[in-house]
Amino acid sequence: MNATLATAMLDAAHAEARRMGVTVCISILDAAAWPVAFLRMEGVILGAVDVASKKARTAVLFQMDSADFAKIGHPDGRAYTLENTNGGMTSFGGGLVLKAADGKVLGAIGVSGASTEEDIAIARVAAKTLLA
Amino acid sequence: MNATLATAMLDAAHAEARRMGVTVCISILDAAAWPVAFLRMEGVILGAVDVASKKARTAVLFQMDSADFAKIGHPDGRAYTLENTNGGMTSFGGGLVLKAADGKVLGAIGVSGASTEEDIAIARVAAKTLLA
Amino acid sequence: MNATLATAMLDAAHAEARRMGVTVCISILDAAAWPVAFLRMEGVILGAVDVASKKARTAVLFQMDSADFAKIGHPDGRAYTLENTNGGMTSFGGGLVLKAADGKVLGAIGVSGASTEEDIAIARVAAKTLLA
Amino acid sequence: MNATLATAMLDAAHAEARRMGVTVCISILDAAAWPVAFLRMEGVILGAVDVASKKARTAVLFQMDSADFAKIGHPDGRAYTLENTNGGMTSFGGGLVLKAADGKVLGAIGVSGASTEEDIAIARVAAKTLLA
Repeated sequence: MNATLATAMLDAAHAEARRMGVTVCISILDAAAWPVAFLRMEGVILGAVDVASKKARTAVLFQMDSADFAKIGHPDGRAYTLENTNGGMTSFGGGLVLKAADGKVLGAIGVSGASTEEDIAIARVAAKTLLA
Repeated sequence: MNATLATAMLDAAHAEARRMGVTVCISILDAAAWPVAFLRMEGVILGAVDVASKKARTAVLFQMDSADFAKIGHPDGRAYTLENTNGGMTSFGGGLVLKAADGKVLGAIGVSGASTEEDIAIARVAAKTLLA
Repeated sequence: MNATLATAMLDAAHAEARRMGVTVCISILDAAAWPVAFLRMEGVILGAVDVASKKARTAVLFQMDSADFAKIGHPDGRAYTLENTNGGMTSFGGGLVLKAADGKVLGAIGVSGASTEEDIAIARVAAKTLLA
Repeated sequence: MNATLATAMLDAAHAEARRMGVTVCISILDAAAWPVAFLRMEGVILGAVDVASKKARTAVLFQMDSADFAKIGHPDGRAYTLENTNGGMTSFGGGLVLKAADGKVLGAIGVSGASTEEDIAIARVAAKTLLA
């Protein structure tokens, strides 16, 4: 992950959100969970600032999309309370692990502010930029 | 618990994890829940750093293995929300209470990063070192 | 402040830092101190992530550049300990208040990672973008 | 940095502290400030647990020994309040940056519990192990 790639991801996510007519926050972290880039669109609910970052943090710390994390950190999952570790994890979609072609984890992206399905769709468009 | 015993436990857990071909974090606390020793193997998911410590913390604060804590600190258990106390407890296995032959609590060990069953197996191997 | 203006400021700061041959973090906040945009260049010291944000936060919370804040929030200044409020303020340069032509506060930018003089120079280049 | 190297550093620091007749905590972080290994000797003041970690964190986040950081984060230094960033930095000796022969930052070690001079001496003995 680097600033140029992260900027391209922010731009792609921002453009996709405008195309869909929604507002979101976008957070990009490196493989060690340090922030690389962030963008908040005007008008988005302010709660989304932290949610976007926590979605990305969940994805990179456990090397799985936050939608998959939801299956294990749930009261009926095999690791109930896992969502209470690491300052609070996010048990719903919108956080994607970013991997290189060889499978190496590069970081994660988190999108929040629209519906969960829209957040995931925007994150996927941005993630494709990384692999292009 | 002391630094020499804790180092021997780290070494035993580290060796067992390598033998099993997995990567983990190992956290050892004394009877007052203060950290004595910690080790993180390269390549382990970063979320395991906090999970290992919280497993050990759960075990020593409630003097029961975290797998047993799971039965009470759960929406269907008899003390639901107990898992939200003390900065967040862990309701799944991998945290073991460490006791002397006379039953006195010496501390706890927490292992995280592999499957829950593997984490428990590694913690048990390390705990045996303490009693040897 | 909005995402488009903030992105243009990030781009300008990023380009200026590359031109100068330094690496920095850039943080942009709105007038309510909420994050709008952030960028971290690869290779910058990791401590700069928080410092860039705190410089911008200092500027917007007290509506003065962090270099000016340094004159009052210092053991020899007229408001010693002011630097310990609001989660910790920053008493050195690199945080600039961003104002519209009519003087209205739009937010703040914080730059950290190079020398204080370089951080200030980069922040100024980015701030000019806003007024263009 | 990896678990085997970090264990060797812990062992070297532990042995040197015993030789000197003092008790300390030793914290080893990787280049992204994530914990790799920790050891607390019995009898050390409990406040040293956090101090050892913060010394190492200061060294790695600013890529300088904590004794050098003291010169800039001080009221008379060029970046007063820098010690209030990143959750609190440490403005005295005992945190050393660990670098490879080519200058690449590998992480940091922090030692606390004895006198500052003794803490530094123990950290240096451990750091030599890394380069051996």
